[in-house]
Amino acid sequence: MKRAVCIISGGMDSAVASFIDKKERYEIVAVHFNYGQKKKKKELQAFEALVKVLEAKSYVIDLDFFKQIGASALVDRDIAVPEDGIKPGIPVTYVPFRNGIFLSIAAAIAEKEKASAIYIGVVEEDSSGYPDCRQSFIEAMQKAINLGTKDETTISVKTPLIHLKKEDIVSLGLELGVPLELTWSCYQSEEKACGVCDSCRLRLKGFAKAGVEDPIPYKTRAVL
Amino acid sequence: MKRAVCIISGGMDSAVASFIDKKERYEIVAVHFNYGQKKKKKELQAFEALVKVLEAKSYVIDLDFFKQIGASALVDRDIAVPEDGIKPGIPVTYVPFRNGIFLSIAAAIAEKEKASAIYIGVVEEDSSGYPDCRQSFIEAMQKAINLGTKDETTISVKTPLIHLKKEDIVSLGLELGVPLELTWSCYQSEEKACGVCDSCRLRLKGFAKAGVEDPIPYKTRAVL
Repeated sequence: MKRAVCIISGGMDSAVASFIDKKERYEIVAVHFNYGQKKKKKELQAFEALVKVLEAKSYVIDLDFFKQIGASALVDRDIAVPEDGIKPGIPVTYVPFRNGIFLSIAAAIAEKEKASAIYIGVVEEDSSGYPDCRQSFIEAMQKAINLGTKDETTISVKTPLIHLKKEDIVSLGLELGVPLELTWSCYQSEEKACGVCDSCRLRLKGFAKAGVEDPIPYKTRAVL
Repeated sequence: MKRAVCIISGGMDSAVASFIDKKERYEIVAVHFNYGQKKKKKELQAFEALVKVLEAKSYVIDLDFFKQIGASALVDRDIAVPEDGIKPGIPVTYVPFRNGIFLSIAAAIAEKEKASAIYIGVVEEDSSGYPDCRQSFIEAMQKAINLGTKDETTISVKTPLIHLKKEDIVSLGLELGVPLELTWSCYQSEEKACGVCDSCRLRLKGFAKAGVEDPIPYKTRAVL
């Protein structure tokens, strides 16, 4: 059976990507990164719940050093998560080269586990505008991974959501039977989603446009 | 002043690379990775001594997860470091995609520190044959780093030693005044270098061919 490393944050996008991976009949090695993000307990809970449903082998990788680097509202408690809507440009929630680091570690795990694919749920256009979600970056990273590992290691980096709109991701999730009620996208809250950070706004917009009620609890629900 | 992130293991090669960085008049941000390698205390000591000489800002980054991945004699206590000479092919000391992970984290630090270069002391031909020391990999990684970070972030990955022979690295180190007595290359010993692992053999060969005595203590000195 083919094997794939699947990077799962616990958010909606990576959950849907992991179910596409499963549908494509890969044996899944699920990887979650604790990088000091503000709602890490809630994300880890979501990851563990998804791993059970997926019946996957899993790695939880602690990356405490992201706090040493800082420079992002997701890991630095002195930088507030913006709540006033998505603006043009790269937001303060951008974590320097986060997906580059995640993909590098996933590549090491893939080489060890003899996996032939890495799944990552990045979204390019309908997103917060992070540079490490662009297709051009993913392609360059795939090339670097294949040149920097053993010649017999061949890894394809799969981004099944990269050109989708959020509403398509919601619909696809429902179609694939993804337990969206187990996923967590909010950047800052752990009891009820804040409903006003960029990630909540994008998720709420997706559900609204798909004409479906988001099953997770919100403090408030911003209109995008 | 231009700023560069310099990956320094504490070994001879990265020490020489860091002095080239200094000679090229960069302000140095020194980065050391603790990845569970067998002689990590000795490497960290060497790093700290070099940072003092270089008068550099420094980051020590703990990467405990390498032990979770394993699959290398450098991090797995159940896999012995070979002592019987350098063989063709990739040795068991290869750590899956280690330099990819190191360069990704260095890129995040470089973006945060507004550095325009990353120095890494990889050697391609006269080395243990690790795939993540190849120039083609470094070039692909540089491209990925620039595509996966902000548009205003431009990072050049510098590999001043990549095509040098070990004896040229020794000579260059002496010419630049690198305190080679502070560096540590052995894969497995911390009091006296073992003198028989691949890293000791390559270093000893370099000093022998350069016609200079290696100033560090050895248990034994293998003839390559």
